[in-house]
Amino acid sequence: MAVVGGGVIGLSIAWRAAESGRQVTLFDPAPASGASWVAGGMLAPLSEGWPGETDVLEIGAASLARWPEFAARLAAASGSSGADVFSATGSLTVALDAADAQDLRTVAEWVGAQGYELELLDRAQVRAYEPALARSVRLGLLAPAELAVDNRILLDELRRAVAGAGVHVVEREVVDLDDLDADQIVLAAGERSARLWPGLPVRPVKGEILRLRARPGVTPAPTHVVRARVHGRPVYLVPRGDGIVLGATQYESGHDTAVTVAGVRDLLADAQELMPGIGEYELAESIAGLRPMSPDNVPLIGRVSDRVVVASGHGRNGILLTPITVDAVLGLLDGVELVEAKQADPDRFSGASR
Amino acid sequence: MAVVGGGVIGLSIAWRAAESGRQVTLFDPAPASGASWVAGGMLAPLSEGWPGETDVLEIGAASLARWPEFAARLAAASGSSGADVFSATGSLTVALDAADAQDLRTVAEWVGAQGYELELLDRAQVRAYEPALARSVRLGLLAPAELAVDNRILLDELRRAVAGAGVHVVEREVVDLDDLDADQIVLAAGERSARLWPGLPVRPVKGEILRLRARPGVTPAPTHVVRARVHGRPVYLVPRGDGIVLGATQYESGHDTAVTVAGVRDLLADAQELMPGIGEYELAESIAGLRPMSPDNVPLIGRVSDRVVVASGHGRNGILLTPITVDAVLGLLDGVELVEAKQADPDRFSGASR
Repeated sequence: MAVVGGGVIGLSIAWRAAESGRQVTLFDPAPASGASWVAGGMLAPLSEGWPGETDVLEIGAASLARWPEFAARLAAASGSSGADVFSATGSLTVALDAADAQDLRTVAEWVGAQGYELELLDRAQVRAYEPALARSVRLGLLAPAELAVDNRILLDELRRAVAGAGVHVVEREVVDLDDLDADQIVLAAGERSARLWPGLPVRPVKGEILRLRARPGVTPAPTHVVRARVHGRPVYLVPRGDGIVLGATQYESGHDTAVTVAGVRDLLADAQELMPGIGEYELAESIAGLRPMSPDNVPLIGRVSDRVVVASGHGRNGILLTPITVDAVLGLLDGVELVEAKQADPDRFSGASR
Repeated sequence: MAVVGGGVIGLSIAWRAAESGRQVTLFDPAPASGASWVAGGMLAPLSEGWPGETDVLEIGAASLARWPEFAARLAAASGSSGADVFSATGSLTVALDAADAQDLRTVAEWVGAQGYELELLDRAQVRAYEPALARSVRLGLLAPAELAVDNRILLDELRRAVAGAGVHVVEREVVDLDDLDADQIVLAAGERSARLWPGLPVRPVKGEILRLRARPGVTPAPTHVVRARVHGRPVYLVPRGDGIVLGATQYESGHDTAVTVAGVRDLLADAQELMPGIGEYELAESIAGLRPMSPDNVPLIGRVSDRVVVASGHGRNGILLTPITVDAVLGLLDGVELVEAKQADPDRFSGASR
């Protein structure tokens, strides 16, 4: 079989398929680059829950539950580097004003009613958990299960697992699936997937993150992923071994969502309002990637022909959704449908199959 | 002979020495990375002139005069990529307040008295040359001869010239010059030079630049290098084929001059005051390098033993000083001293030779 795409999704599928006895060839002109290399790695389906968005919540929560076993299996398969792939102790969304506080209560109530654990924290509790945050924080929403993943450690482990499982990696761009002579093809080419399967409703949406490196004497980074809205703009801080990944969740769709000079200036200023000590960190890297967005923020996982299974359209949640995507695709290759991933069937959009 | 260091200085010396018939081996664990890869590439010895700093002015001006021939020779040797290595039409320093305007007059008068062409421009003239600049600009200092060099095109051409001339490139770190069996060694290892020649007064000073990429519809980049001081902080804009290199000249010495989150935020805000439309550019890259600084801002070019010639300590001006450094070193290898580079003799510092 062939896997087209060497991001977290493609690498994971190739590894696990090879481990289960298949002959696997993976194609990517530059494996482990692209959106996977840029990712913040937040696993936050609960904190991002919103009344009515049940499909997104359910598939995200199902994948989150699979992450610990996935990580343990990967550590074993990769001959673990010793570095922990998880980089946070949970997720903490904070409110700086009354409107945001009301939103947090709405999320806590609705997500709680779906059966997931979230905890509202008052001002003093937030400061006890994260003393580096600004005094203006008035309410917090704690999701202890929502870890973050260090995307670059993950990619490193996946590459070693892929090599260990005997996957044949071909560093070449596939321009037409008909050029491949594999009996089965998994299309996991991220935002490039629609070029290879016309009609697949995946579009590129640019996401940019800033990597901040701790310098001697700086305020320690939070231990939780910290998410907030400052002046109406989303900001998140994801702790890493050497500092903080700072991001601005992109809600705009369309092809040009480049983060501008003015946008970065605002992001740095907003981050300083959330965590005053962050100004002393070093700006080590500014990097952008193109995320493969689907129209409804649910990924596209399913068989689109006798020969092709799609695993794309993961949007901002590629790392979160990796475990469930792998399980669903391995099932499909064996002719079994994974019930928990049924809402991701590309058949829900017209024009997705030919 | 051996050249230790594969930045612009080492590559240039290796190329020209090989072209003149020598057998050359160049050592660098990662050629064309380091400070050369980060550089803004301004050639601005006149605009940066200041009364009394004659040595810095003279060697800089002498090297600037050699740049056109150096570039033409390199284009021929590299089988020119067709891309122009020059990326600006001159240098324009602007004043936003009365104190800066007075400084510009001081520079114009002193540098003019040394025999170099500089021109003061009034507000209307500045706007005619560079309409993208802020209306608050009150005076300008034009240096038509001061071009900028696209450092990455330069490195690309140098690597091809080096290959074409038959230089043997060894991608390995040299830890002791005694390990090399070459009869003559040129030490051009930038900020690492002092590790290989203890006592050489070269220290690393971090420099960081931001690369801004033009997006459709943005205000066109200036055609000149634009230099200014905003709120007392130096800012420069260097035009490139795809946008602008934005920098903050570092005056601090010492080992920790990391540009912080707060520093980048200020730099972006300052740049917007100088060129209001810059906010719509994309922040494409944030990158730092370690420059090899000498105590007096004049480089260290000279023979330090029967076997070793040093070419280091170029500080912020490595690209500017490449042509004269190459000519001086080739002369020294033939036993001839280049009079115009005599102020760079490392003998001026005690402890520089052993």
